[in-house]
Amino acid sequence: MSKKSVVVSLGHDALGYTTTQQHDAVRITARALADLVEEDYQLTITHSNGPQVSMIHKAMTELRRVYPDYTPAPMCVCSAMSQGYVGYDIQNALRSELLSRGISHPVSTVLTQVTVDPYDEAFYEPTKVIGRFMSADEAEAEIKKGNYVKEYPGQGFRRVVAAPKPIDIVEIEAIRALAAAGQEVIACGGGGIPVIEQQHVLKGASAVIEKDAIAGKLAADLKTQELIILTGVDYVYLDYRTPGQEPLHSLTLSQAREYMAQGQFEAGTMLPKIEAAVYYLERVPEGRVLITSMKALKDAVKGKCGTLICG
Amino acid sequence: MSKKSVVVSLGHDALGYTTTQQHDAVRITARALADLVEEDYQLTITHSNGPQVSMIHKAMTELRRVYPDYTPAPMCVCSAMSQGYVGYDIQNALRSELLSRGISHPVSTVLTQVTVDPYDEAFYEPTKVIGRFMSADEAEAEIKKGNYVKEYPGQGFRRVVAAPKPIDIVEIEAIRALAAAGQEVIACGGGGIPVIEQQHVLKGASAVIEKDAIAGKLAADLKTQELIILTGVDYVYLDYRTPGQEPLHSLTLSQAREYMAQGQFEAGTMLPKIEAAVYYLERVPEGRVLITSMKALKDAVKGKCGTLICG
Repeated sequence: MSKKSVVVSLGHDALGYTTTQQHDAVRITARALADLVEEDYQLTITHSNGPQVSMIHKAMTELRRVYPDYTPAPMCVCSAMSQGYVGYDIQNALRSELLSRGISHPVSTVLTQVTVDPYDEAFYEPTKVIGRFMSADEAEAEIKKGNYVKEYPGQGFRRVVAAPKPIDIVEIEAIRALAAAGQEVIACGGGGIPVIEQQHVLKGASAVIEKDAIAGKLAADLKTQELIILTGVDYVYLDYRTPGQEPLHSLTLSQAREYMAQGQFEAGTMLPKIEAAVYYLERVPEGRVLITSMKALKDAVKGKCGTLICG
Repeated sequence: MSKKSVVVSLGHDALGYTTTQQHDAVRITARALADLVEEDYQLTITHSNGPQVSMIHKAMTELRRVYPDYTPAPMCVCSAMSQGYVGYDIQNALRSELLSRGISHPVSTVLTQVTVDPYDEAFYEPTKVIGRFMSADEAEAEIKKGNYVKEYPGQGFRRVVAAPKPIDIVEIEAIRALAAAGQEVIACGGGGIPVIEQQHVLKGASAVIEKDAIAGKLAADLKTQELIILTGVDYVYLDYRTPGQEPLHSLTLSQAREYMAQGQFEAGTMLPKIEAAVYYLERVPEGRVLITSMKALKDAVKGKCGTLICG
């Protein structure tokens, strides 16, 4: 039996915030991923990188305060570093977990860039919240640099950046070659390094690509049999966070579109996941999308939990 | 005609020190690499990362001074970040250069770990100089942390770490799959992240793997047809830096061994290159090794310059 191909999108809780938290969190994440490998899946794994890229960006800023000879590290460079950092921990943890189950399997990370459209309307209205809470002074400094911030009354400020739609995954052929060889691949970390194509040159863009959007794009480009989106909840809900909230066990593509139109899904959390599912299923009509939590994944793969969306 | 496979080892001058220098340097490096692609080579590229990992390590240290909530980033994590950072710039520059010549070709970076032996004698006598010059105070702080430093009279101090021999390239199957697909691959950046295998877990080691040593290992493991080691000089010399210094146009494996035994090659610069050549040719007897400078590479590939070593 040949392997089932799947793109797995990991959320924030798969990684944690600090180097220590990430080192610990990925060991739990690796167990969930190894369960999938044992179920004969070939995994292409994508992950968020908000806290990681924010940590690296702060570090590179502090570096220049102390050693002014160093030149600034733009966000795209910090994003590349974060893919190295997160990929290293995930590939290591997954390799170890597989070996402890007697499975010797190549796992690697491909550094990935994703092109975006400089005229994407997202650039005119940044919505993607990144980094930790800032004080009013820090927020003002960001605004002076031309960046956007959003106030959370009583909590502080956070930076917001544009979340344009992904156009092309630049390194897709490398990812495809590894997936075709039946290897586990980590790719498009943090949504991919967002770049704008100018002539033959890719310039880093001041943006973040929604990791769920890239997961949908990656699954569609690779034509994987499944797309698994891991999140904080076991199910997609109707009337979420109301007394009458109702978990959805399965959903058709047209139902998904209908509920989106009704505004059932929260922007920035569940909505991008459903949008990714729709994007993928429109291009791979025979595909299956599973949205669930990491802890429910093992049951969800067996059909006992989670929300399954089919074309 | 099928492609000629080659491992190319890039030296420090291929990258520069700061983010800006690297961005500029890789454009020149990319031209030399693109010349090889035009000569129908499939490239597996490895590079040094001393200044890059040092910059990142300093940044992560400064981060913790300002934001003590962050946990330390060990050298292996900084090394992973540096592979992301350098790989991003090289893959971008090479892609652009190829496109400007009308060649659309996948170029990607594989995050790579390399196992080392914890009982490697190198750990008892660190020799590999890393990072910039430090003051006496900075040097003392390093010694207090259990690190080794070396004094350069009149210039200051530099940190030295162990340079153990590479045992296994952990992600070799991913590199092999991409090379086999005829794609350009950047791998084993900075010699690879040095790790020690304990049970099923890979622990980061406080060491640096000599980039030339890993280039020889990579070429041997992949059984590439050639190994090209780029350095600051156009030729390997006998009696280097003496009035009677003599460039070597070609060299057999046994001559290479003989000159090594005579102590002709300087430790830390030319010696590891010759050792890498010997390691590779012992395992791939039909292989060819070319040692030259980046600016002489185009001529060297045509046999007009550089030192060619064959079995």
